[in-house]
Amino acid sequence: MSGNTFGTLFTVTSFGESHGPALGCVVDGCPPGLALDEADLQRQLDRRRPGRSKHTTQRREADAVRILSGVFEGETTGTPIGLLIENTDQRSRDYTEIAGRFRPGHADYTYQHKYGRRDYRGGGRASARETAMRVAAGAIARKYLAERLGVTIRGRLAQMGEIELGASDWSAVEDNEFFCAEPERLAELEALVQEVRKAGDSVGAAVAIEVRGLPPGLGEPVFDRLDADLAKALMSINAVKGVEIGAGMAAAGQRGSAHRDELTPEGFAGNSAGGVLGGISSGQDLVARAALKPTSSMLIPGRSIDTAGEPASVVTKGRHDPCVGIRAVPIAEAMAALTVMDHWLRHRAQNADVTPSTPVIPAHRPE
Amino acid sequence: MSGNTFGTLFTVTSFGESHGPALGCVVDGCPPGLALDEADLQRQLDRRRPGRSKHTTQRREADAVRILSGVFEGETTGTPIGLLIENTDQRSRDYTEIAGRFRPGHADYTYQHKYGRRDYRGGGRASARETAMRVAAGAIARKYLAERLGVTIRGRLAQMGEIELGASDWSAVEDNEFFCAEPERLAELEALVQEVRKAGDSVGAAVAIEVRGLPPGLGEPVFDRLDADLAKALMSINAVKGVEIGAGMAAAGQRGSAHRDELTPEGFAGNSAGGVLGGISSGQDLVARAALKPTSSMLIPGRSIDTAGEPASVVTKGRHDPCVGIRAVPIAEAMAALTVMDHWLRHRAQNADVTPSTPVIPAHRPE
Amino acid sequence: MSGNTFGTLFTVTSFGESHGPALGCVVDGCPPGLALDEADLQRQLDRRRPGRSKHTTQRREADAVRILSGVFEGETTGTPIGLLIENTDQRSRDYTEIAGRFRPGHADYTYQHKYGRRDYRGGGRASARETAMRVAAGAIARKYLAERLGVTIRGRLAQMGEIELGASDWSAVEDNEFFCAEPERLAELEALVQEVRKAGDSVGAAVAIEVRGLPPGLGEPVFDRLDADLAKALMSINAVKGVEIGAGMAAAGQRGSAHRDELTPEGFAGNSAGGVLGGISSGQDLVARAALKPTSSMLIPGRSIDTAGEPASVVTKGRHDPCVGIRAVPIAEAMAALTVMDHWLRHRAQNADVTPSTPVIPAHRPE
Amino acid sequence: MSGNTFGTLFTVTSFGESHGPALGCVVDGCPPGLALDEADLQRQLDRRRPGRSKHTTQRREADAVRILSGVFEGETTGTPIGLLIENTDQRSRDYTEIAGRFRPGHADYTYQHKYGRRDYRGGGRASARETAMRVAAGAIARKYLAERLGVTIRGRLAQMGEIELGASDWSAVEDNEFFCAEPERLAELEALVQEVRKAGDSVGAAVAIEVRGLPPGLGEPVFDRLDADLAKALMSINAVKGVEIGAGMAAAGQRGSAHRDELTPEGFAGNSAGGVLGGISSGQDLVARAALKPTSSMLIPGRSIDTAGEPASVVTKGRHDPCVGIRAVPIAEAMAALTVMDHWLRHRAQNADVTPSTPVIPAHRPE
Repeated sequence: MSGNTFGTLFTVTSFGESHGPALGCVVDGCPPGLALDEADLQRQLDRRRPGRSKHTTQRREADAVRILSGVFEGETTGTPIGLLIENTDQRSRDYTEIAGRFRPGHADYTYQHKYGRRDYRGGGRASARETAMRVAAGAIARKYLAERLGVTIRGRLAQMGEIELGASDWSAVEDNEFFCAEPERLAELEALVQEVRKAGDSVGAAVAIEVRGLPPGLGEPVFDRLDADLAKALMSINAVKGVEIGAGMAAAGQRGSAHRDELTPEGFAGNSAGGVLGGISSGQDLVARAALKPTSSMLIPGRSIDTAGEPASVVTKGRHDPCVGIRAVPIAEAMAALTVMDHWLRHRAQNADVTPSTPVIPAHRPE
Repeated sequence: MSGNTFGTLFTVTSFGESHGPALGCVVDGCPPGLALDEADLQRQLDRRRPGRSKHTTQRREADAVRILSGVFEGETTGTPIGLLIENTDQRSRDYTEIAGRFRPGHADYTYQHKYGRRDYRGGGRASARETAMRVAAGAIARKYLAERLGVTIRGRLAQMGEIELGASDWSAVEDNEFFCAEPERLAELEALVQEVRKAGDSVGAAVAIEVRGLPPGLGEPVFDRLDADLAKALMSINAVKGVEIGAGMAAAGQRGSAHRDELTPEGFAGNSAGGVLGGISSGQDLVARAALKPTSSMLIPGRSIDTAGEPASVVTKGRHDPCVGIRAVPIAEAMAALTVMDHWLRHRAQNADVTPSTPVIPAHRPE
Repeated sequence: MSGNTFGTLFTVTSFGESHGPALGCVVDGCPPGLALDEADLQRQLDRRRPGRSKHTTQRREADAVRILSGVFEGETTGTPIGLLIENTDQRSRDYTEIAGRFRPGHADYTYQHKYGRRDYRGGGRASARETAMRVAAGAIARKYLAERLGVTIRGRLAQMGEIELGASDWSAVEDNEFFCAEPERLAELEALVQEVRKAGDSVGAAVAIEVRGLPPGLGEPVFDRLDADLAKALMSINAVKGVEIGAGMAAAGQRGSAHRDELTPEGFAGNSAGGVLGGISSGQDLVARAALKPTSSMLIPGRSIDTAGEPASVVTKGRHDPCVGIRAVPIAEAMAALTVMDHWLRHRAQNADVTPSTPVIPAHRPE
Repeated sequence: MSGNTFGTLFTVTSFGESHGPALGCVVDGCPPGLALDEADLQRQLDRRRPGRSKHTTQRREADAVRILSGVFEGETTGTPIGLLIENTDQRSRDYTEIAGRFRPGHADYTYQHKYGRRDYRGGGRASARETAMRVAAGAIARKYLAERLGVTIRGRLAQMGEIELGASDWSAVEDNEFFCAEPERLAELEALVQEVRKAGDSVGAAVAIEVRGLPPGLGEPVFDRLDADLAKALMSINAVKGVEIGAGMAAAGQRGSAHRDELTPEGFAGNSAGGVLGGISSGQDLVARAALKPTSSMLIPGRSIDTAGEPASVVTKGRHDPCVGIRAVPIAEAMAALTVMDHWLRHRAQNADVTPSTPVIPAHRPE
């Protein structure tokens, strides 16, 4: 109830501060019999890791994950899976200065009011370092979905500052440090990052994700809609300020005759809905976007107050990404995997004995 | 777990189909001692009701709500509050034609795959009629928040089709049928609705809401952030395709030096964050927007399939709004009230004995 | 979170006070396709109803239940099932005297401290009348379990005051007003009830229930064990003070060599475990007992205090059972049905793709 | 939902197998500002530890607990508290024999059917070793309750085999290896343990716990009653087969005039209710008992089957307690602490603004 658990049937309960002894989580509800080892998780963690490229923070976090339970003889047993990452490179000295003042745009001020205190070292629990456990847990969901349901998830950078990106070549995503699916524009991105870094500033971004292969029927109507739960999942990622499904905010400007995705025996005639109708998957691709604010950790000094309410100036000198959106791609993918996995278990709990007589029609995929 | 309960400590569990005997809900967790009667709920229900204006559907739904429990001698007792609205104007005959075919853009196809059957009368559980109970329950939360915490909630139409609206005069909202806070543009809105109606089409919309007077400290970090839960709440409203907090999707294009809201002893220097930092309320106004797709119920025939998968054409002849966004304003307000109320109870469960020593600084409100 | 919801996947959320307008509940999570009508529920409600025999209270409660949603064309649809019983025979005048004083052994004093107020009419929410909704909801679970899994549930009176009862003839249970499975001892029971009634006193009781036909594998290890959840379910019934599974409290006096139920290819050699090992069903009969205190509503005056803390005397003159245990049999059965149904859905959510290679051995049933 | 989380607002989510790398848990919802270090937890863990006396198993489990998060500068911060105990003394070789056959009275058979597999080493997740995390988590709840509410919890052995024990001297409990509050009978207990051990058998036990200092008003009516949740908590402890509150099973034999606890301005006239009325604490001592079956791990060979269903004989040669009830005392105390703590937070979430006008009367404590 204190908000550290995600999901209802496939749950992730996480703990850990940026500069405490360790981060960890408990993944509960994983069906038994899934082949799983630490390398499955490490592969995804390495995609998120700072230090992966010259454009993301140069902190050296090994992020080596251990599986402490729930796996026996190489397979999940159905009991909870405990995961642990020890914090090794803590460098507390970088952060002592911020103990007495609130960094603008960060959670310092709000934590102080909520709890009357805060672990100020590196942002404590509010640090983006917390998302490592989401990626590790998401890797389990992802593996199950791929192996048992044929569901796959992919993501890409969709915008950085004024640069909007398309998806001319999805296969390029893993080959560049921006998770960019339009490789011909990498030079633009590099130039923008350099410019922002030189200015001591930061820049926002948007990420796009797609879930393919979903059967129709996932999602609960009314409150726990698949799209509502995905919106929560994405909005819970540090720095996210907006979430769109399918046509997204642009739907406000559309006519119904243009928006509706007609059905034909050959398939859907469009995917404005982004794969969800009435909160339930339609069998089309689940398509979502999230916008991330530019980080407030930057070299340009900002006005603030200290814990006594007196004026103070704040400069963030540590090692920080000029664009946090780059690292958000694998995190958003992980949150989508957790959301879909949870709804798969929920769906089959109630509907395992349903055999629909209506045919499934193909998804719309233009090209 | 089947998704018909919203909230964790202040919960709403709803039931009812559009054309069944009744709609109802159970509101659990309301603190005792709140003065409450049916008129408190009816006032909000009347704002949402179809038939309120000539621009919304002409169905005659009395929407008369009864309080069945949890109130004694004019005050809440702390026990669950049962609410009921009997369905009176059902006209099932309008809907029999759609029993055998799927309306494009509706939940017919997805319900059929999820459950192997559906109550096809008027959309059944997927009908927007379900939102009446949200408004009734939200009215309780709203009253508590206003009377005990001084928190107020207001909403307005922010966009309809190509018309984007500002808020030159909030006081006008209740005086026009569009919940429009820019009264000088009412003629434009009327013209657009008429044009769309004449074309047998529909049009999308966006709504904006603001929560004022929140104390800092509401919201749980990590997963159950105040903004994440609000995003879910808004995305769970029928037809919503996008949700923004503060700067929203535009944050992707911003620089950090522009986005961050600096703190000064006189108050915050901006509100790009929309009132939430690290998932926790900052004491600034909570500002959100939601985009609603144009309804798929329209006179222009659409291609579809029947339940056997054969091609079929669908025309929706019933009484329907050309712009569902108009009615979404009180619904979005209600969902915000429920979200904030839930987080208030969660906050005080854990932190009732916290006395922060740091001063609260004023919210940023330009002009 | 205010305790008015039972279950996790198959949930019952109830509302209503003894003398308010109505009682009701929402049953969420019922799989679609179950044939269901009001008569299915009424049959169980009639077994619980006061006025059923001369030994239970003579209040005339019609207890006529309406299904308000979730059923279409005679079958459940998968959406929440709203149930309602209007209160018709309220006679508020019987209860006005107790507004200012606390009845000993009742919840008057504790409600007053918890909420600072209480609906004193007939015990309000604390009245046993609340259990009507448990029986109605339980009837749905029971029907599903019988039709889809072949699981059946039966109960009987196991003790009344000093009279301990066996089960020489289960078929007699529905033919007598005591739910007694030892029909040769009915005269003893009648004599005891008359004696207690004449003395203006009341008497305790114990009930026994059995669930037959359970597949092995239901129940979650560690906290949400099948037996732990059943213990909670039974202890949540008004007046219950003790719960036993299998050997129960007597297990404290046993040797391990006597208690353990050996396994043989022909079946288990005993059922001390009462059908649960490690919190998970073994395929044996689930066997439980619950003890109910004698009601504190009686003609013998009792010492108490008024709401100002001054001494007061209390006599309960209304229409009350001298032995509430008699009516507890169908309630306990209903709670067992709800518990098992919930665990069935939980089990299949996680383990629907498990195919155990080990044979199921028969249950032990002596005779 | 897989049953590894206890509580709703103060939650414990545990993981770990008996012979895996580690056991751990996440304690979420602890209010900030509680002074806490590892020694606070270790003190309770040492009371539960096997090897504490010659009467409990001689396994050497260091059970050294680490706090991994949620504590900063010696105080809880309000963020989740991660706890970890590495398994050091595993001796897997003792258990390889049981991989292919089911130990009677253990969870081997039921796990195999539930999950299609099991971690057979030392009982895996079903091992009583899992309860170490309950004791560690309970120590946090216990400290909060004592320091902030003045609530204290104590337990004792109430029965071992045919020996029923009273409480002539509570102060003796920590001075003997049986948690016995009747020190004059220690010789009897020692003799019984020796006799049972010599016979290669085991013996059952019962434990009694008392919670003192509870304010009235804790517990939710209807389903989540304080006594119902305590019953679940105690029944979830390995080997427990029965739970009693106050008069317990004996209530079935009582008259109402004897059972009811009259109220006087000087206090309650008795405590048959065991501190709970209508599911809510009355301010009296919360009194409960739990019966534990004799362990099925013993030297006397038992009939069983192997995983193919063929007859097999099982002897448990490892290091095992002849009476598991001895160690259950601190575990039961911990579960009571977790239950009360959770209800305290739930109570104040809903009722923090209630100020009852009725005086609190003293608890009944005979002597």
